[in-house]
Amino acid sequence: MNFVAEALGLSRQTAEKLEEGSILRKAFVRDSFFPDLVDAYRLDKKFGKFEEGTFIAKLKDRTFVARGFPKIRRTLLLDPTLKKHFGNRRIVLEEKMNGYNVRIVKMGENIYAITRGGLLCPYTTEKARKMISTDFFEDFPEYMLCCEAVGIASPYVVFDYGVEFDFFLFDIRNAKTNEALSVKDKVEIAESYSIKTARILLETNADNVDLILKTVQELEAERREGVVIKDVEMKIEPLKYTTSYINCSDLRYAFRYFAEYGRDFMLSRIIREAFQSYEIKETQKDFEKRCLRLGKAILEPLVESIKDVKSGKDVVEKSKIFFYDGRVAELFKRHLKMQGINAKLTYLYKKDGKIYYELQRVMRSTTDKISRILEGGYWQ
Amino acid sequence: MNFVAEALGLSRQTAEKLEEGSILRKAFVRDSFFPDLVDAYRLDKKFGKFEEGTFIAKLKDRTFVARGFPKIRRTLLLDPTLKKHFGNRRIVLEEKMNGYNVRIVKMGENIYAITRGGLLCPYTTEKARKMISTDFFEDFPEYMLCCEAVGIASPYVVFDYGVEFDFFLFDIRNAKTNEALSVKDKVEIAESYSIKTARILLETNADNVDLILKTVQELEAERREGVVIKDVEMKIEPLKYTTSYINCSDLRYAFRYFAEYGRDFMLSRIIREAFQSYEIKETQKDFEKRCLRLGKAILEPLVESIKDVKSGKDVVEKSKIFFYDGRVAELFKRHLKMQGINAKLTYLYKKDGKIYYELQRVMRSTTDKISRILEGGYWQ
Repeated sequence: MNFVAEALGLSRQTAEKLEEGSILRKAFVRDSFFPDLVDAYRLDKKFGKFEEGTFIAKLKDRTFVARGFPKIRRTLLLDPTLKKHFGNRRIVLEEKMNGYNVRIVKMGENIYAITRGGLLCPYTTEKARKMISTDFFEDFPEYMLCCEAVGIASPYVVFDYGVEFDFFLFDIRNAKTNEALSVKDKVEIAESYSIKTARILLETNADNVDLILKTVQELEAERREGVVIKDVEMKIEPLKYTTSYINCSDLRYAFRYFAEYGRDFMLSRIIREAFQSYEIKETQKDFEKRCLRLGKAILEPLVESIKDVKSGKDVVEKSKIFFYDGRVAELFKRHLKMQGINAKLTYLYKKDGKIYYELQRVMRSTTDKISRILEGGYWQ
Repeated sequence: MNFVAEALGLSRQTAEKLEEGSILRKAFVRDSFFPDLVDAYRLDKKFGKFEEGTFIAKLKDRTFVARGFPKIRRTLLLDPTLKKHFGNRRIVLEEKMNGYNVRIVKMGENIYAITRGGLLCPYTTEKARKMISTDFFEDFPEYMLCCEAVGIASPYVVFDYGVEFDFFLFDIRNAKTNEALSVKDKVEIAESYSIKTARILLETNADNVDLILKTVQELEAERREGVVIKDVEMKIEPLKYTTSYINCSDLRYAFRYFAEYGRDFMLSRIIREAFQSYEIKETQKDFEKRCLRLGKAILEPLVESIKDVKSGKDVVEKSKIFFYDGRVAELFKRHLKMQGINAKLTYLYKKDGKIYYELQRVMRSTTDKISRILEGGYWQ
C-alpha cells in the first residue's frame, strides 16, 4: 500500500491519517485478465479532496489514479433552484440514463472499467475492451471516459433501452484532477472517436423553466429516468432531476425487496413526487393519477413478494448476463464474492460467440420476514 | 431514589444495575396538584420483568408501583396467526380506540392518571378526577383502570368519537403484578361502577376467521382504528389488528410531518396494507381503490405542508384543549417542558366552567427542510 500516498501526493502526516481511517480497500481480484496491474486500492469514503471511489493503482512502471466520480446533487424543484445554481450561464439538459456509472481508462496495454465505488469490474471491463476502441486513449492517455453502462444484460441495473448492453458517455475527465471537458469538446471528441453519448436534449438558460419542464415531461412520456443539468463550460457542478416514472420504478424495486432496502431510499423518492406535483401545478385529475401510480408502485411489488413466498419461492432478483470468455465469468464470481454479495451465477447457453448466464440474488431478509408472518408470526 | 429498589423488591445487586442503566427518570413535576406524592420515578426502558413505563412513587406512608402497560403485539394476518396464538380458547374482539393509553390509579386521597411512558399527566389527571368516581378504588385499592383517553380535546391524539374528551376502560389490572381480570369480570365491574368501556364487538373462536374479518370490515366502514383480540380469560396475551382506514390516517399524519417522523413508522403501515390486501383477496377494483387511498394518504399531506411553507406559515400541529382550573394549565406547560416538547399553549376563552386553550406544536424539521428546498436548496 506504500505507493498510494505517493500516487496521491500525500504528505507523510496525511498518509498516516489515511491508514488510520481504514478507508483504503482492495480494488480488484488478482487475475491474468488484469495483466497491467501490480496492485490497486480504492477509497471507500471521501478523503480530503479525493472523492469516494477514487482508484489508485500500481502499474509495472508507474502509479495511476482515477478520481472518484463526483456526487451530483439533486434538485426537487426546477424553479428557483436552477436559476440560483447556474445564474446566467448557458446550460444543457443531458439525459440521465438508468444504468451504472463506470469510468473507462487505459492502464498499460489494456482498457479497464472502474465502477462507482472504485472497483475494477471484470464484467464491465470485458465489454469495454470489445466496445471501446483504444484510439481515444492514444491521444488522451490522461483522461477517463465517464459512461453509463446500460441494458438488459446488466449485472447491476437492468433497464430496457433497446440494447443488450452498451456504454453511453456523459463526461470526459482528467483522471488525476477530475477536471471535466466542456460539453462541446466532449461531444466533438466523442464523435471523432465514434463513442456513443448520452443524448443532449436542450441547450438554454436556467430561467427558461417552462421549456425545461416540457423537456422533462417528454422524457416522462418516453419512460426515461431524467436529466443531468450541466453548465456548458462544466465550470459549475451539474444537478440532477428525475421523472415521476423513474421515482415510481425505483419504489417498485425498493418495495419488492423491502427488507433489503433502506427506508431513506423510499422516503426520498416519495418526497420527490410531492415536490414535482407541487411545482407543475397539476390538475386534480392528474394528481389522482399520480397518487394511484404511487400507491401501485408501492403495493403491487409488496403483494407480489408475499405471493412468491406463499407459493414456496424465495424472493429473488434475476438477470441474464453474458460473457465472451468463460474465464471472465469465473473471475466475476470471485469479484462478487470479494464484495460479500450473495449471488449465484448459472450457465444457460452459448449463442453468437457469447456465453449466457443467469445471475440470481436471493433476498434473504425479505423472504424470511414475509415467511415468518405467513406462518403466524408477529410484525414485531 | 432509594425507595425504588424497595418498592420493586430488588436485591442490592439488581438495584445497582438499575442505577447504572440510567433508565430511571423523573415521573412528575412537583406541585400541590399532586399532594399525595413525596417523590416518583418511571422506567424509561424495560427492566427485568418490569415493563417500560412502570411508575414507582413514594407516598407519605408507603410506596406505590403501577406496572407499565404491556406492549401488545400486532398481527398482519388473521389466518393463521390467531389460531396459532389462541388455539381453542374463546376470544373477544374489543374495539381498539385511537387515543392515548392511561392507567388511572388512586394514591393517598386522590386519583392520578399515568401515561404510557410512566408520566403523571396533569391534563389527564384533572379529567380523571372529574370523570372517574373513587368508588371503584374503595373496593379495589390495588388495581388500576387501564383506559384509552380519547376525543377532540386531546393534547396527544386528536380523533373524533363524538365526545370532547372521555375515558374508555379496556383492562383492569393489579397495579403491582400487572395481572388482568378476565373480560367478564372487567365488564361486570365496569358496569357496577358506571365506568365506560371499549366496545366488545364479538365473542368467538380463533378459527372463525370469516366472522372476525367481517367484524373488522364493519369497523373499517365506521372509520375506526381496529381491534384488540383477547383471550376471554386474559391468560394469553392479546394481539392487535388495525383497519386500512387507520393505517392511512397514520400515514397522513406521518407524511404531513415527514421530517419529524421515523421511517419505520411509515414502512410498517405500508406493509400492513399489503398483507391485508393479500389476506382478504380483494378484487382488482378494490385493490386499485386501496392503492389510490394509500397514494393520497401519502401525497396529499406532503403537498399540504409544502403549500403551508410556501405561503409563509410554519408546519404546525394544533389542538384545542380545556382545563377546569387555570393552575393546571400552568402545570401542564411545565409538564411539557420537562419532556422537552416544544409546544405553545395559548388562552382562547372560557365556556361552561371550562377554560379553553390552543396547543400548538411547530414541526421545526419539516418546516426547515421544505423551506430550504423552496428557496433553491438541494435535497442532500
